[in-house]
Amino acid sequence: MTDGFRLAARLEADSLFLADWPLCQVRLMDDARFPWLILVPRRPKLEEWTDLSGDESAVLAREIARTGQVLAQCFKPTKLNIGALGNIVRQLHVHVIARFDTDAAWPGPVWGQGTRVPYDIKRREGLCTELVALLE
Amino acid sequence: MTDGFRLAARLEADSLFLADWPLCQVRLMDDARFPWLILVPRRPKLEEWTDLSGDESAVLAREIARTGQVLAQCFKPTKLNIGALGNIVRQLHVHVIARFDTDAAWPGPVWGQGTRVPYDIKRREGLCTELVALLE
Repeated sequence: MTDGFRLAARLEADSLFLADWPLCQVRLMDDARFPWLILVPRRPKLEEWTDLSGDESAVLAREIARTGQVLAQCFKPTKLNIGALGNIVRQLHVHVIARFDTDAAWPGPVWGQGTRVPYDIKRREGLCTELVALLE
Repeated sequence: MTDGFRLAARLEADSLFLADWPLCQVRLMDDARFPWLILVPRRPKLEEWTDLSGDESAVLAREIARTGQVLAQCFKPTKLNIGALGNIVRQLHVHVIARFDTDAAWPGPVWGQGTRVPYDIKRREGLCTELVALLE
């Protein structure tokens, strides 16, 4: 079912692989400003939520919930933000972000705000290890 | 199951009732800049996607798809944008927005951009009538 799935180059460049779930690949946005995971359904040629079958959309909804639970457990955020925009990268992907009332974009959305700040390598490795264990 | 559901005052003030679906109330954001629907799960005390049961999240996913299909049919947008933020209004609600590469916020998100422009009354009535028919 994942035949023909290819990750968009921009998602590949800006985020890090964490796990492959039944529907989605789970990735960490490499932006130290916000704890931010991305779900990419592993199906070819998806652009819109409406391109998913009914069963796939139900799985996506559960994978969003599971992602949110991991972020809540790991970071204790003020609020979760969930978004599927795709105005720039058309491949269907869902952002699940832990937001804090002290973060750089609060209370606005994170998209289009300032410039991505990559994690330093030690923090990135530690965070990926922690998240991979929680996402299993 | 909808006992105790109350719409947040800010959502009530900024949007118009269109339909009650199995899970969500469907509302039109009263903002002529963007064709913009809001889904509000008709359950009390929901704030996060993770507060939904597995079955409810599956229904929400399908209602998001149905909303997106109506917007696509009605407006032929460049892209659908879907978001559940809630940084300001905490009651769980999902935005489904028809975006155009010519609109006032493209390619950024609509949230926090400029000031809401209410529809003029004639356009609002025509649009509500059209949408209510499509959402049935």
